[in-house]
Amino acid sequence: MENSEFKLKAIGWIKADFKQKFATPRQGSLAKSSRASIELSPEWKGRGLLSGLESFSHVWIVSYLHLSNFKNLSAKIHPPRLRGAKVGVMGSRSPHRPNNLGLTLARILSCEGDDLQLAEVDLIEGTPVLDLKPYIGFADRPEEYSNGWLDKADSFDRKCQFSESAEAQLIVLSEQNLISEPHRIRALIVEMLSLDPRPPAYLDRSNPQFAVWVAGLNVFFEYIDSGFVITKIELDNSRPRP
Amino acid sequence: MENSEFKLKAIGWIKADFKQKFATPRQGSLAKSSRASIELSPEWKGRGLLSGLESFSHVWIVSYLHLSNFKNLSAKIHPPRLRGAKVGVMGSRSPHRPNNLGLTLARILSCEGDDLQLAEVDLIEGTPVLDLKPYIGFADRPEEYSNGWLDKADSFDRKCQFSESAEAQLIVLSEQNLISEPHRIRALIVEMLSLDPRPPAYLDRSNPQFAVWVAGLNVFFEYIDSGFVITKIELDNSRPRP
Repeated sequence: MENSEFKLKAIGWIKADFKQKFATPRQGSLAKSSRASIELSPEWKGRGLLSGLESFSHVWIVSYLHLSNFKNLSAKIHPPRLRGAKVGVMGSRSPHRPNNLGLTLARILSCEGDDLQLAEVDLIEGTPVLDLKPYIGFADRPEEYSNGWLDKADSFDRKCQFSESAEAQLIVLSEQNLISEPHRIRALIVEMLSLDPRPPAYLDRSNPQFAVWVAGLNVFFEYIDSGFVITKIELDNSRPRP
Repeated sequence: MENSEFKLKAIGWIKADFKQKFATPRQGSLAKSSRASIELSPEWKGRGLLSGLESFSHVWIVSYLHLSNFKNLSAKIHPPRLRGAKVGVMGSRSPHRPNNLGLTLARILSCEGDDLQLAEVDLIEGTPVLDLKPYIGFADRPEEYSNGWLDKADSFDRKCQFSESAEAQLIVLSEQNLISEPHRIRALIVEMLSLDPRPPAYLDRSNPQFAVWVAGLNVFFEYIDSGFVITKIELDNSRPRP
């Protein structure tokens, strides 16, 4: 069929607080405390590609979800919040979709030259960016709209507690200048866990333990009494800090 | 650079009221009276890919703007409403952009099986569709936002008049059952022209004449006294009607 295959090229790559799919929120608005930036590709640097964006509050990021590589893609999926019911992939915002395209509404913190600083980004370090488009009220905000089956879906708001030792570890790392913005990172961890990131296979296990990388830290946590307890926070020394 | 090129495949193609870039509105919300549907590609037919969409009011269409094929793409463009000032391509919604990606918010009229009927679509017949995502309030509607430089840009609202003979031609075509929905088509023509589609090279010409294809019709019009007059409407016999 003509007009059926297209070769697209990254205009840049995301630098972000997340590097695993596990526990990364799935919408920018669910990751209010996240920070990210975009490293433009060499061919677009220094040419004013982003000029004008500084005057907007929000930007759409069209990205290629490079970690969503499924060989046999289903036409239907089980959204975590629908207790087993299925919907078509195009009737959902699932990342497991043909063409692996992501659509994130991010908040613009600043934009100067090629340096675009963002908040509310649900993307993983290294995600290729295919396009950016400013958020425009008249185009992007219909006066009336409905949220479809999402209005009937479960919503999660798990309790999150930091153990005394985890709190102390965050303070020590901050006092040693090994992390900046400890309050932001603490809030981000709560945002990630309150959505209940447990994979389906772990839902029936008692007191399962997890670890996740967040903004240069390894964060250890358990699921206990219908909520999460952050048990340990340590610097990730396995790679240079951003 | 790794992770820099991606091959994407159309999941379907747009069937629409427009077939030329000229005079096609550039945002779904500016083409309220437009109608469109999506012909799914053979590999996705009959598999429930769209199931769930019927419960939402709006859907994002990520498309490949196949008629935007520019060899030497600029990093900056002149938006028509900025009177000569330039902005970066990523600081605008211009269709002349790296990767030719379109983002359209369309209104869902109905969705049954593979048959998705839409309104408010700014896309041209045959545009390849790469992705569809339901519109979701919590993700897509920040409480506060700003429209950036667009708030300072000119807005167009050109007067549109139908000549007596053009009105009569529309009525005759409708009475002969050669077109359905004459009121919708009339409204759509007004939506297209009120935005002032004159190309830059025509802005200084006196009484320029134009023709455009709309929903199976050839529509002829002139620019006179700061507004448009539709002078003639005839059936396009050069191809089978949709």
